[in-house]
Amino acid sequence: MNIRIRGAKLLIYREGTFTVEEKDLYIKDGTIVSVGSENIDPADLWEDVHAENRLVMPGLINMHTHAYMTCLRNYADDIPFAEWLFDRIDPAEAQITPEKAYASNLVAFAEMFLSGTTTYVDMHMFRGMSPKAAEAAGIRAYIGRGLVGGDLYKDGLSRFEEALSEKEEYESDTIKFTLAPHAIYTCSPKFYEQVSEEAEKRGLLKQTHLSESRTELSDCLKQYGKSPVEIMAETGFLEGGAILAHCVQMQGRDIALIKGSGSTVVTNPASNAKLGNGFAPVTGFVKAGVNLCLGTDGPASNNTQNMFREMSLLSLIHKGITEDPTALSAQEVLAAVTVNAAKALKMEGKLGIIKEGALADLIFIDLLSPSLFPQNNIVSSLCYSASGSEVSDVIINGKFVMKDRKLLTIDLTEAFHVIS
Amino acid sequence: MNIRIRGAKLLIYREGTFTVEEKDLYIKDGTIVSVGSENIDPADLWEDVHAENRLVMPGLINMHTHAYMTCLRNYADDIPFAEWLFDRIDPAEAQITPEKAYASNLVAFAEMFLSGTTTYVDMHMFRGMSPKAAEAAGIRAYIGRGLVGGDLYKDGLSRFEEALSEKEEYESDTIKFTLAPHAIYTCSPKFYEQVSEEAEKRGLLKQTHLSESRTELSDCLKQYGKSPVEIMAETGFLEGGAILAHCVQMQGRDIALIKGSGSTVVTNPASNAKLGNGFAPVTGFVKAGVNLCLGTDGPASNNTQNMFREMSLLSLIHKGITEDPTALSAQEVLAAVTVNAAKALKMEGKLGIIKEGALADLIFIDLLSPSLFPQNNIVSSLCYSASGSEVSDVIINGKFVMKDRKLLTIDLTEAFHVIS
Repeated sequence: MNIRIRGAKLLIYREGTFTVEEKDLYIKDGTIVSVGSENIDPADLWEDVHAENRLVMPGLINMHTHAYMTCLRNYADDIPFAEWLFDRIDPAEAQITPEKAYASNLVAFAEMFLSGTTTYVDMHMFRGMSPKAAEAAGIRAYIGRGLVGGDLYKDGLSRFEEALSEKEEYESDTIKFTLAPHAIYTCSPKFYEQVSEEAEKRGLLKQTHLSESRTELSDCLKQYGKSPVEIMAETGFLEGGAILAHCVQMQGRDIALIKGSGSTVVTNPASNAKLGNGFAPVTGFVKAGVNLCLGTDGPASNNTQNMFREMSLLSLIHKGITEDPTALSAQEVLAAVTVNAAKALKMEGKLGIIKEGALADLIFIDLLSPSLFPQNNIVSSLCYSASGSEVSDVIINGKFVMKDRKLLTIDLTEAFHVIS
Repeated sequence: MNIRIRGAKLLIYREGTFTVEEKDLYIKDGTIVSVGSENIDPADLWEDVHAENRLVMPGLINMHTHAYMTCLRNYADDIPFAEWLFDRIDPAEAQITPEKAYASNLVAFAEMFLSGTTTYVDMHMFRGMSPKAAEAAGIRAYIGRGLVGGDLYKDGLSRFEEALSEKEEYESDTIKFTLAPHAIYTCSPKFYEQVSEEAEKRGLLKQTHLSESRTELSDCLKQYGKSPVEIMAETGFLEGGAILAHCVQMQGRDIALIKGSGSTVVTNPASNAKLGNGFAPVTGFVKAGVNLCLGTDGPASNNTQNMFREMSLLSLIHKGITEDPTALSAQEVLAAVTVNAAKALKMEGKLGIIKEGALADLIFIDLLSPSLFPQNNIVSSLCYSASGSEVSDVIINGKFVMKDRKLLTIDLTEAFHVIS
């Protein structure tokens, strides 16, 4: 059935600015076919969804996470980084089974829906588990099997083949695949070069972890005499636009190289702060005109998938660092989780936006939530006041996956059982 | 009726550490009379409250806000501080009526309950509105009429008399009063001296804004040749313990003076970051052994009253600044919003803790919330994963004010109407 959303306020992006307009919204075959009532086929029938006192806005796009790690949420906190990684997370990760990875994904998606995320970019370890869970839940996914090695066609081959066969088996309207070399400390420059060529040949998006810690930067400088970003530039990985998670430690020409390539920085403020990696130079990225997006990182290092929490954190941290209340405005933060993300995913005008022809990935915000009242400025309230609990309904690809905070596609009982 | 809470996990504070224990909890006349079942009068009757899959923990204590300013939430954001204060907030504040202040308080309390706050410390402008609203909602309040002037008994007299008469008229089991000189840039050192004497004579708690901005510090040094903290120390304001909001700009002996006096620092990370005042030296306070508490500040400068958001922010910001993942642990943050706050309010062992003889101010956390699953470490999850939406029930002074997220004491319709 086609849906007509009536009585809502809509968050519209127009000439670089978000504004609120009251119009009806028409959804057909997973797509927004009209904002207002132009171009409506009089023969079509519509199921009315009444959304008075709701803001209908694009679903949030979490540009970097590892949803399969939900079983390790709050498993290791408040300890030094090396102890966290080598003594706690690495051994625990080795105990994750495909079944636990699947259940972890479902719990992560439940949290995402309840806090307004409709699309996520994932780097994972268990072939098939992410796309199967994403398909079952109805979330829009950009998935990449983490790749490591010195040579893509030798020690990297088995994972690469997994990545390709996973794509072949599971790609759908809502499930897309990326190539995801892990990081410069687990992949050689040659490996990045090979991945870049494969990505170009196959028309695939590229994602990687980049310059997350001081150790990564200094080790890389020692080993290669170049920064991780410089290696990405030289190997062709930045060409055509890559999705670069973290980018905390920038030096020299790094920001300019990223900007010049049209690549995207995905900042992960909670994870970077929590693990003691510090704060990325986000205002520097913005000033340089880099496409800036936002991610939560995995539940083992954040420890939430709540993008509203991450949005407030992004703005507050960088206003605080710069001692400038105009830094990272609510408008800029909202762009990072919607239109900028769409650009990174090469889905401009199709994703993260309410307009004719865009995919119908929408969330409803209950404007009668005490936390959002009064409505002096709805855009500000989304960045500074919302906790995620104000999300009442979620539509992905034209279908409701949550109504009145009831999850329609995810039965948590079994998932909880598997990872408890 | 007396209440017996059954089947819950309880958050117990024992020897400086929070742990989780499964025991029944008995509440009578607003007080916890037994944890487990010792010392129960066999003649007593109990209404059973079943709380399986719930964590029952002390309600959070927001140690600094201005709830009457809720009507100005999201009214002025992303602009320079002087423009924010002088062009936007000051003129808008002058338009607040007592009726709007009352409604603003109710909306703030609704947000507080929905995110787990049961006690708040307020500095306000409208005689009677805060205590009347707090009494109606059933929240525990520590209220102070903002005082300004050069001489308490001359230009400061009318507000001081308001403060005293407000206390006389409204003080109750749950509503207490404080003396609240506004700040060193609106009150003279002599004024602080007079307030300190009155507070001692009357046995009243003292609260003030202190060293919030660089301008406050430099103006104070210029005018008095001393830092704001040094003036507080010299005027006797710190003696016996005062509640000091902000404390962002510390220098020289400032931290040692606060520590030596037994006074409490209330850090407001969101407000300080958002207004561009920067980050308080919180790890310095902790290292020096200062009693550290947490506040949201008012809705015009935060823009939420959600203490779970503030808890994660506190920990993440200071781990990020110090690049130390062990800084501001979940245990320390949880202490800041419970037992440390009780100490500041001179209610140690009575407030912010689950133990025999303590006041029954409790919140229930739904442990089957996807955001908190799995329960690898409940204390971590409260600091790093919770958004506030996991709070299901709220008890204050032994009475339910929220059940299954339904507000029992606040009807928002009229309040929304007044401030919309």
